[in-house]
Amino acid sequence: MSVFTKKKEDFMAWYLDIVRRAQIVDTRTEVKGMNVLLSNGYDIWDRMKKILDDKFYITGHKNMYFPLFIPEKFLELEGEHFEGFVPEVAYVTHAGKKKLDKKFALRPTSETIMYHMYSQWIRAYSDMPMKVNQWCNIIRIDTKDTKPLLRDREFQWTEAHTCHSTPEEAVEQVKESMWIYGSTYDECCLPYLITKRPKYDTFPGALYSIAYDTPLPDGKTLQIGTTHNLDQGFAKVFNIRFQKEDGSHDYAYQTCYGLSTRVIAAIISVHGDDRGLILPPYLAPLQVIIVPVIFKGKEEAIDQECKEALEEIQKAGIRVKYDDSDKTSGFKFNEYELLGVPIRIEIGPKDLEKKGVTFARRDTKERIFVTKDKIVETITELLEEITEELKKRAKKLMEESMSDAATYDELENKMNSKKPGFVRINWCGDVSCADEIKERLKAEIRGTLYGKEEVIFGSCIICDEEAKEVVYISKAY
Amino acid sequence: MSVFTKKKEDFMAWYLDIVRRAQIVDTRTEVKGMNVLLSNGYDIWDRMKKILDDKFYITGHKNMYFPLFIPEKFLELEGEHFEGFVPEVAYVTHAGKKKLDKKFALRPTSETIMYHMYSQWIRAYSDMPMKVNQWCNIIRIDTKDTKPLLRDREFQWTEAHTCHSTPEEAVEQVKESMWIYGSTYDECCLPYLITKRPKYDTFPGALYSIAYDTPLPDGKTLQIGTTHNLDQGFAKVFNIRFQKEDGSHDYAYQTCYGLSTRVIAAIISVHGDDRGLILPPYLAPLQVIIVPVIFKGKEEAIDQECKEALEEIQKAGIRVKYDDSDKTSGFKFNEYELLGVPIRIEIGPKDLEKKGVTFARRDTKERIFVTKDKIVETITELLEEITEELKKRAKKLMEESMSDAATYDELENKMNSKKPGFVRINWCGDVSCADEIKERLKAEIRGTLYGKEEVIFGSCIICDEEAKEVVYISKAY
Repeated sequence: MSVFTKKKEDFMAWYLDIVRRAQIVDTRTEVKGMNVLLSNGYDIWDRMKKILDDKFYITGHKNMYFPLFIPEKFLELEGEHFEGFVPEVAYVTHAGKKKLDKKFALRPTSETIMYHMYSQWIRAYSDMPMKVNQWCNIIRIDTKDTKPLLRDREFQWTEAHTCHSTPEEAVEQVKESMWIYGSTYDECCLPYLITKRPKYDTFPGALYSIAYDTPLPDGKTLQIGTTHNLDQGFAKVFNIRFQKEDGSHDYAYQTCYGLSTRVIAAIISVHGDDRGLILPPYLAPLQVIIVPVIFKGKEEAIDQECKEALEEIQKAGIRVKYDDSDKTSGFKFNEYELLGVPIRIEIGPKDLEKKGVTFARRDTKERIFVTKDKIVETITELLEEITEELKKRAKKLMEESMSDAATYDELENKMNSKKPGFVRINWCGDVSCADEIKERLKAEIRGTLYGKEEVIFGSCIICDEEAKEVVYISKAY
Repeated sequence: MSVFTKKKEDFMAWYLDIVRRAQIVDTRTEVKGMNVLLSNGYDIWDRMKKILDDKFYITGHKNMYFPLFIPEKFLELEGEHFEGFVPEVAYVTHAGKKKLDKKFALRPTSETIMYHMYSQWIRAYSDMPMKVNQWCNIIRIDTKDTKPLLRDREFQWTEAHTCHSTPEEAVEQVKESMWIYGSTYDECCLPYLITKRPKYDTFPGALYSIAYDTPLPDGKTLQIGTTHNLDQGFAKVFNIRFQKEDGSHDYAYQTCYGLSTRVIAAIISVHGDDRGLILPPYLAPLQVIIVPVIFKGKEEAIDQECKEALEEIQKAGIRVKYDDSDKTSGFKFNEYELLGVPIRIEIGPKDLEKKGVTFARRDTKERIFVTKDKIVETITELLEEITEELKKRAKKLMEESMSDAATYDELENKMNSKKPGFVRINWCGDVSCADEIKERLKAEIRGTLYGKEEVIFGSCIICDEEAKEVVYISKAY
């Protein structure tokens, strides 16, 4: 097995290497930025879908599917929103050799087509809250360099769009979405910071935007989800109007939130190492791999033990495979470490003698001997322990990624260091200062901590005028 | 509640009515043939996906996702296949205001992009069998009249594509797919006939095509799935070449099979009645609805009983809702009958007295009194019984839909009758006779029974020459 690019030496080269070699994505499609999500990647996404669908269900969201094609006039209706997407929108103009009467946009996001429907569905306050979720493919012909799962021209996502009869309820819905996404990231063992984006970085058409950013091991950060409070902006444009209890009329208060396959990139990046993936046990397509350590004359006995273990583990509902192929056990060890299988069970002649098996943890590389009667029990415990260990690592990465800068020099040093992470600074609120940070440091203001007023600890780090907010700066993907 | 179009009087009007009123699909999107799959429709599809995913898993299929965009040159490579789709293919030509260097087709099916990848993945016999499934949206700008779920320009489907090292294995794979689909239709309580399509109606590029047709209550039939044995046709074009065990080289033997949201249309059509949907219990978004029958002075006691029943049923993992809204119980009865909820539980003052509840079955309209301690047990039994009842109805519809015609007059009478169904005839095998049937009777040869040689019982029904096959004729949607 050839050696990986080292994660610490060149993070992006390591990432591209592992995504390919652990068979998450194949980019050789001849369609730039549109790749094959291979089964190892697909299965992770499928499990994330289950986690999210459960949360959508208990919070009263309904799943629906809306058209991929969007009439151009819908996009144009919401001018500001449309402008934000213009260069990225793909257009369908022909069917066969025939030119279509009207051209259609492929959804870069579904506000317009969904709200066109909502205006037909909502008549009275009693029709709300309305919470609709859509799982679908999204097309954005991003002009920047594409990178598998980090920046794709086609990707899978969930987008939820809600309507409420009061602005207070919309604010509560923003918080509910933060619980839905936050608890999902927790289950994926991901660290994240929730901030309210600055006004100039708000989603086109929204009142304010909340974003979820994860620190990556190379010191940059990655946005892995957003929630927007749309207030009545879209509702007025799309005429989502309703009768209130007192008989008067108002426009709906809306929110929306989305999260994409980019989360897979975050999981890979945060937890993977130089041997390959390290997958959170709940998401791992395979949780346990059984590898026989063959010894001449003992082949049959070992094979028998492996099969017994397989059957017992399968019965317990654990995702397990027994690899009885001709490859050497060393080759297999490497292969399943690359794939990030949380637990390896080895059965060799010594294990036979001692009436047990050897466990190897993917995360800590720890090996332990377990007697036959304790196999399933030990797996169940270990899967929990591994999850806890990965959550601990996420927390540690989060802590290591946070720092403060009181002066511009301090900020500059941190931003030019190997791991800038999130740096807390004081800001006057002027866009010109934000622009200067962008230009001089290639870094961006991510926003203010949501729901918590932070104490200002100095003047604006750029202009030295009075600071109005404490904000987080990072170099973002 | 307004009266439905009667199913027996005008099937298509009834279908369009019910699809809209039971909130399966909303067509008011301003994109012809691309509709909103509402949550009642979406949830049925989601459960079908689970049924199929379980079968894909145990038979060794892997789920993956391939690009929506297909380079035009891939389509052109397989000329015959491409020609079959030409007028329906949607093309993307622009990103924002910029014209793209190359135009891309939106997948009308994914053979070409998938096989382009397969040619990079398959090197040796040991790489096979390779069984890949994709869940995705499909775009076909059908020029015929669109009808929700029956003929859409965008629809959801599953397409599986397999590679094998021998032709025999490909034949076996065709059979496996027939089990996967057939057993799924069974679970959906659908009747179906499996035939091998005539040569002229074979999928472009395939050796032979197997199709699954369901008889609809109006006497027409609906194709609800297909399986194709592709032999080496595509493999030669896309260069899916492998080394055999003996060192020589060969091209892969392939199969593919697909099934779409059209199956939902079949379920609605076969089982629905003039009150609305009748859903197979396993697929029903809601399995039980609790409706209080309010009686003055007893409101609280009844509400209490309903809540207790709700909790108990929920704990048993059954999909249940308690409708405590202000609407009348009569209104609620109608509403949940329209939605096809298999079991209604009514709790009124008499039930209180007798310490029990009243069950109403959606399928038979039968009502039974059940004591409180037997509620969950009765539901579990009834869900089974209802499934059996629907399967019985499917079987009956199938039997009623089958008949033989020995003479052209007989065939003509049957095809012009109210319920033509499938009519078995003798055919010489000439396309000209098939064309005549099409032209004179607006009916089509569906094919020969797969895997069973049937005894010819006369001469060709058209030309009176010697018959070569027994085939099934129907008017197809």
